[in-house]
Amino acid sequence: MTLQGTSLIGQQAVTGDQAIIRAIDPSTGEALAPDYPGLDRDAVARACELAGAAFEAYRETSLEARAAFLEAIAAEIEALGEPLIERAMAETGLPRARLEGERGRTCGQLRLFAAVVRAGEWLDVRIDPALPERQPMPRVDLRQRHVALGPVAVFGASNFPLAFSVAGGDTASSLAAGCPVVVKAHSAHPGTSELVGRAVQKAVAGCGLPEGVFSLLFGAGREVGQALVADPRIQAVGFTGSRAGGLALQQTAQNRPQPIPVYAEMSSINPVFLLPEALEARATELAEGFVGSLNMGAGQFCTNPGLVIGVKGEALDAFVAAAGEAVKGSAAQTMLTPGIHAAYADGVGALAGEAREIARGPVGEGPHQCQTALFATRGADFLRDEALQAEVFGASALVVECADLDEMHRVAHHLEGQLTATLQLDDGDLDAARALLPVLERKAGRVLANGWPTGVEVCHAMVHGGPFPATSDARSTSVGSAAIQRFLRPVCYQNLPAGLLPEALQDDNPLKVSRLVDGKRE
Amino acid sequence: MTLQGTSLIGQQAVTGDQAIIRAIDPSTGEALAPDYPGLDRDAVARACELAGAAFEAYRETSLEARAAFLEAIAAEIEALGEPLIERAMAETGLPRARLEGERGRTCGQLRLFAAVVRAGEWLDVRIDPALPERQPMPRVDLRQRHVALGPVAVFGASNFPLAFSVAGGDTASSLAAGCPVVVKAHSAHPGTSELVGRAVQKAVAGCGLPEGVFSLLFGAGREVGQALVADPRIQAVGFTGSRAGGLALQQTAQNRPQPIPVYAEMSSINPVFLLPEALEARATELAEGFVGSLNMGAGQFCTNPGLVIGVKGEALDAFVAAAGEAVKGSAAQTMLTPGIHAAYADGVGALAGEAREIARGPVGEGPHQCQTALFATRGADFLRDEALQAEVFGASALVVECADLDEMHRVAHHLEGQLTATLQLDDGDLDAARALLPVLERKAGRVLANGWPTGVEVCHAMVHGGPFPATSDARSTSVGSAAIQRFLRPVCYQNLPAGLLPEALQDDNPLKVSRLVDGKRE
Repeated sequence: MTLQGTSLIGQQAVTGDQAIIRAIDPSTGEALAPDYPGLDRDAVARACELAGAAFEAYRETSLEARAAFLEAIAAEIEALGEPLIERAMAETGLPRARLEGERGRTCGQLRLFAAVVRAGEWLDVRIDPALPERQPMPRVDLRQRHVALGPVAVFGASNFPLAFSVAGGDTASSLAAGCPVVVKAHSAHPGTSELVGRAVQKAVAGCGLPEGVFSLLFGAGREVGQALVADPRIQAVGFTGSRAGGLALQQTAQNRPQPIPVYAEMSSINPVFLLPEALEARATELAEGFVGSLNMGAGQFCTNPGLVIGVKGEALDAFVAAAGEAVKGSAAQTMLTPGIHAAYADGVGALAGEAREIARGPVGEGPHQCQTALFATRGADFLRDEALQAEVFGASALVVECADLDEMHRVAHHLEGQLTATLQLDDGDLDAARALLPVLERKAGRVLANGWPTGVEVCHAMVHGGPFPATSDARSTSVGSAAIQRFLRPVCYQNLPAGLLPEALQDDNPLKVSRLVDGKRE
Repeated sequence: MTLQGTSLIGQQAVTGDQAIIRAIDPSTGEALAPDYPGLDRDAVARACELAGAAFEAYRETSLEARAAFLEAIAAEIEALGEPLIERAMAETGLPRARLEGERGRTCGQLRLFAAVVRAGEWLDVRIDPALPERQPMPRVDLRQRHVALGPVAVFGASNFPLAFSVAGGDTASSLAAGCPVVVKAHSAHPGTSELVGRAVQKAVAGCGLPEGVFSLLFGAGREVGQALVADPRIQAVGFTGSRAGGLALQQTAQNRPQPIPVYAEMSSINPVFLLPEALEARATELAEGFVGSLNMGAGQFCTNPGLVIGVKGEALDAFVAAAGEAVKGSAAQTMLTPGIHAAYADGVGALAGEAREIARGPVGEGPHQCQTALFATRGADFLRDEALQAEVFGASALVVECADLDEMHRVAHHLEGQLTATLQLDDGDLDAARALLPVLERKAGRVLANGWPTGVEVCHAMVHGGPFPATSDARSTSVGSAAIQRFLRPVCYQNLPAGLLPEALQDDNPLKVSRLVDGKRE
């Protein structure tokens, strides 16, 4: 497929006439053809109008039809073959294996949501049958299901050009919920976005769905995204990116005549707590595991471990020394964009002014490469200086040396909201872990033991979310099957004649879904 | 129990030193003793500090302990006996039978939430067991449960002095979720609030819970409420009241350094669609049912039917004539407060300027009494004039006479978000109802057939919510067991040693809760 540099509005390819986006190969600094001219506000409105028009039919597609559509998207993405991987490599500087893995994850995610749609747990069916004889008042027949919120605006993320972009987790969960999607492509990987967008477009046509179920918009700057979130047809927003970007969208969403929910995954430094026995027993092993996690994807994961907390002493010194050595041996990696590299350099520079430098990785040979960075500070200083909690997006971490376990506790309490919190612990650390756990549960969406936060399983129990500023809505997850719940709302039906009841709520349970009948699970 | 005019901060009775609230008997216009001096910001902060301090212990009380606490509150409210009903009658002008019924509902609601807590569906337990042999990567062990958000600010509502006030639905569902509650009492019924507050306070002590689990604050004006929502310890807000009030709290919540969710139930005119066959068959009966619903509680229900839509013709004329007669025969009723009565008079006056008056009820003999009001307008005018959708809180309704079913459809499309939408239908109306249903599902949280929207069953399938401006968050309900979900967030535990796992997530399922294991319901 030849890239055409167009947005996709329903089944149409539309060439914008606004400022041009041009992809840059971050490993060479060279621009990649073709140009992607941005759309104007009228084109954004057209996409939203189509999405609005498609909503009624799409939200009531059968579970099977919707699941088949999600599977068709996965098949169409796979059918793109090698050109997708090559274009993504050129646009992101990410290695082949990572992108092949990410493609697998993206398609697996679409197929998981197909299974989720078929299983129907998301309908949250509740039936309270009529009690005509109840005293002092009879009870009417009441039935509840969940329905789709409406068209969703999805913002592609820079750091997952496939799994959190055009057909990524936000898109898959919106479509699964019955919501048409209008994607604002991330300007860092327009070609990858166009390829995947055309795959989705093909699946829409192949499944005979209304064209407005999916559109893909390009736009330099913020205008297209802001217009999209402000459009009255849009009913929810999915976003992964910076804190400033997420908060700006949140503001726009709140200032609409009808405010809408924004699910923004924004900022997390993912603290790792090294408990004393574990640290004593395996400081070097922990240091190596830590730096391996820190360097994954050039540190450009939302769950990158940017903060390590331990009690000062010989064992922590050994950890820091070994981690420093591992950092020095960390090959420079190309970052996603020149802008991200520049922000990383600034962030590391700022940390260098606040904390003690332990080690830097070697200078790379190409442009836009990160030098892994490790800093240390005292617990007391961390508690004093909010700036030490600022996320540095990329392979940079700070070790906090606490005076004792009490100070470690205070550091935990002092943390902002996080996507993850990790405990490294041995059997002898159970009491210390038990004391920390309630604090960590309040700070993070996922608490893990003896692992590293990078690597987010796409499954039913996953929570990729967490208290502000990790996300704008701690009640949700953007990874895993529960992500579908973000795009649903409950509707109750009272005394509806059987002939009017949605299939999910009919007496004989034709969809064979799990139901809560009179409060009891069936 | 003698009323003392105090706020309750934890187990302490605190006399404020700010502007005084004085209850008024709306049936006489006379002030009722005692005075309730408002609190200052420091006192608000103290209540929040106590709530924050209580949170950790309270959120991890056993299911049984928490359920017993909710039941203890119900028992303490019942033990207040006759003085509670008498004070509530004096403060609200509502009749004894209504208040006795409301007390029953309030206590029933607390006991329902006790059962909900014990059943544990709200934990939404999900377990994805480790798959160490999976290729290309093993899967770790992942488990999810829901945990309490944190202390909740609850605002008492004027129109349900028991069921949506100090120990009403928001309080019951917050406490059930494991969240301490700080109530801002509604200034219209301070004595009722103090009595119920002391009952809750007694239950807290009796159950040996930390005192900060419950506080009750008085304050004239908006300062106490705004300070409460802005307090960093508060993590969510429950509110039932006006659109302006709800939006002001929403703004404060969004402007915090850490934004928090606000569940505001605000404004709804609860459209009723009279489908042709039903109207033809039973115009008079429908008119009587309608006016009965309109007059319930002097029209001061959130689900009061303020809009009736039919196709013009003889049958609709007969309905309007019969409804007009019923309105003329509607006894004047005392409204909740002088302010609410004044706003009602203003709203009716504004409607009189925009629409055709059909009938008014008789002038009452006491002060602050509503004269039921019925107006009519053409469908085309309704579509043109947004002002006709403004809620008039009280017994006032507008009949929209549509040219045909198509116009009825356009009227439905044109509506703002609603708590309820009602269909009056006969067998011959099924096709017309089927065509309207998808529109109504998008507009309302509850769709009902052949009933009236007043009367909200407290059960599992209820949705008392709906799209903006009916509520600030269409994803939620404020009545029924699903209301607990507003105050919870998911946490995922990865590879936690068995000894650290919360009870809800342990292998042998000691809480015997329903679980989703590998996506399958167990």
